[in-house]
Amino acid sequence: MFVLVNLKAYDCDPVAIARAAADVADDAGVRVAVAPQATHLAPVAGTGVETFAQHVSPTGHGSHTGSTLAAAVAEYADGTLLNHSERRLRLADIDAALDAAEEAGLETVACANNPEQVAAVAALGPDAVAVEPPELIGTGTPVSAADPDIVTGAVAAAGEVDDSVSVYCGAGISTGEDVLAARELGSSGVLLASGVAKADDPRAALEDLVSGL
Amino acid sequence: MFVLVNLKAYDCDPVAIARAAADVADDAGVRVAVAPQATHLAPVAGTGVETFAQHVSPTGHGSHTGSTLAAAVAEYADGTLLNHSERRLRLADIDAALDAAEEAGLETVACANNPEQVAAVAALGPDAVAVEPPELIGTGTPVSAADPDIVTGAVAAAGEVDDSVSVYCGAGISTGEDVLAARELGSSGVLLASGVAKADDPRAALEDLVSGL
Amino acid sequence: MFVLVNLKAYDCDPVAIARAAADVADDAGVRVAVAPQATHLAPVAGTGVETFAQHVSPTGHGSHTGSTLAAAVAEYADGTLLNHSERRLRLADIDAALDAAEEAGLETVACANNPEQVAAVAALGPDAVAVEPPELIGTGTPVSAADPDIVTGAVAAAGEVDDSVSVYCGAGISTGEDVLAARELGSSGVLLASGVAKADDPRAALEDLVSGL
Amino acid sequence: MFVLVNLKAYDCDPVAIARAAADVADDAGVRVAVAPQATHLAPVAGTGVETFAQHVSPTGHGSHTGSTLAAAVAEYADGTLLNHSERRLRLADIDAALDAAEEAGLETVACANNPEQVAAVAALGPDAVAVEPPELIGTGTPVSAADPDIVTGAVAAAGEVDDSVSVYCGAGISTGEDVLAARELGSSGVLLASGVAKADDPRAALEDLVSGL
Repeated sequence: MFVLVNLKAYDCDPVAIARAAADVADDAGVRVAVAPQATHLAPVAGTGVETFAQHVSPTGHGSHTGSTLAAAVAEYADGTLLNHSERRLRLADIDAALDAAEEAGLETVACANNPEQVAAVAALGPDAVAVEPPELIGTGTPVSAADPDIVTGAVAAAGEVDDSVSVYCGAGISTGEDVLAARELGSSGVLLASGVAKADDPRAALEDLVSGL
Repeated sequence: MFVLVNLKAYDCDPVAIARAAADVADDAGVRVAVAPQATHLAPVAGTGVETFAQHVSPTGHGSHTGSTLAAAVAEYADGTLLNHSERRLRLADIDAALDAAEEAGLETVACANNPEQVAAVAALGPDAVAVEPPELIGTGTPVSAADPDIVTGAVAAAGEVDDSVSVYCGAGISTGEDVLAARELGSSGVLLASGVAKADDPRAALEDLVSGL
Repeated sequence: MFVLVNLKAYDCDPVAIARAAADVADDAGVRVAVAPQATHLAPVAGTGVETFAQHVSPTGHGSHTGSTLAAAVAEYADGTLLNHSERRLRLADIDAALDAAEEAGLETVACANNPEQVAAVAALGPDAVAVEPPELIGTGTPVSAADPDIVTGAVAAAGEVDDSVSVYCGAGISTGEDVLAARELGSSGVLLASGVAKADDPRAALEDLVSGL
Repeated sequence: MFVLVNLKAYDCDPVAIARAAADVADDAGVRVAVAPQATHLAPVAGTGVETFAQHVSPTGHGSHTGSTLAAAVAEYADGTLLNHSERRLRLADIDAALDAAEEAGLETVACANNPEQVAAVAALGPDAVAVEPPELIGTGTPVSAADPDIVTGAVAAAGEVDDSVSVYCGAGISTGEDVLAARELGSSGVLLASGVAKADDPRAALEDLVSGL
């Protein structure tokens, strides 16, 4: 299982969470990555944790102001999220951003709201898709409990399109129990945010998440 | 073969083109539809021609200003384009707009730039996909001549995902010969714009388009 | 006072409301206009009511799919809203859309959230600005009661920039009393939506709105 | 005069350019700042150069994925560009982003295409506005030569709205002569990009830019 922690724009200490994630990953022998804002990629990657961007632009080098170039991200990070429900992209831009990320050597995790959209993004060739029903994000109610068919449907939908694409599960994940439930439903990773970033003790939250693996 | 004429925002007479299209469709026994701006849907549909919108919003009734509601479009039109390269939508909005259009009883033609994107939109369940490499739009060089593999690749890509989805072919189509070439490559329709809307004699252009069918 | 009724995408009968608005305007000698979706501009204008679009595109004739061209709108309508809080535009696009609307002979009403933004849009030269705090839209609590300083501030802000720009007042307007309060605060019109479009009896709602004028 | 170098997404060495800018600023006693992508803010600021972001989001801490929070930017940078013609913002978002930047203690430079838009953004209270006709960006033809009235018009327009707002001049600036011409037209700074970032010798280009000051 892969645990990917999206720090969003939360008022947290990204470097402290990154250090905790690096430690927990080492101790538990589990992949744990942290996805800070672009501004924090350099300091977060400096901790040695596996680092993801939250987004990369669908463009290459050139006259683009305010962009997040995959090539610049790749100086620090190992991968990137794309098309998160808080940063939805146009279809053609998901396609172009995946190409840009792949060319820069970034691992790609493209988000989708439901099994149909999972199939659609899987057709564009990311390394993984993350299914996250927007209505469950931040609720603390895991999709594995609220609507397990979305996870099994996503696994089936991605598999029909391209069985080399991993499926992660997001929205409402906060405990080790949620991670195990996600694995039982066929996903090979979890995407979470507030469960760690807004936890009183992010290290303890991370330890709990990987405790059953 | 289905001939779908996108009038875009060209400085043309949409009602005159609609009348010519209705006549040519009747005379040739070929499906010919006209897609005007939303503002012109009512007068165009009033000619009796098969009418498409150029876009519908991914929302339903409610507090949405400046939208193009599928339900309002369906009072006049038979179908709608979606995700044209000049009106690219976010993936989640293509999904929602397809649902809104389907609920309103509209036939849906979703556009895509290349075979990968064709597979992606086909996974969302439109009635048809139209493959249009943006770099060929308006050039007068048909995709069937410039890059026939894009058309055969689109037909194959859509078929793998959902073989009930029709594939249309766009970009650079302007003559009856182009329409026949598109059919030979496996598409069941053509999407064109300037070839009719900017023609000196739109009726003659339409007659030429269907002349070989 | 000018009463401008935005029908948004409400599930209402735009032609029936247009007829009622035309009658009420005639009977009371008050300007009352109706702003339907672009799809309904032709049938609404056919009633003879003063007709506004909810939005026009910042572009002219050309290869623009899914746009709402000012020139097409002007075949039916007298004016247009721009930059409504449900259809916010980029600053450069407000500028370009105002130019396009003006060239097409449309009266322009540009919306803004607060006095600073009123000053900003006034600097771009619309015929009128409408101040609408987004948090009050659809509440039934008129801005004139909830926060009268926003209206007086908007009137002052517009006047400092360009005293030929009219100031309208929106958000939460639903009664004749609200219209009078808006006038007392210095505005020369009101922008409203649900108060008429979702009323059980839109004609009675319109009659009440103009009753004190 | 203030020299603000926007590195855009150019294929350059941002840290090397930052070091050169810091040296040139020190040697000449002129304010020179560098604006890298968000990803490069930390390493660029580490050189000690005055650092600007190219953009900040109109939102504060919270559930925002792929954003560039002003508070995160302010850990490294001194200021930010906003509404560059390659990253145009909706009017309400310029207003909110200016508020977010100001609250984070960032100096703000808001861009605009022409004198009308300069007046509009000046009304929102930035520290400075930069007028950049988009058609001249990257041409090497300075706006001071191609269309000096745009610069003097911008200075006049900003002054009428708020005379505490500085006016910078962009588009086509590449030499010390261009900087002097910009000063003569009434601007107190220049915004440039390719003239430094794509120069064979960025340090020499910077030295030339400040040579006449």
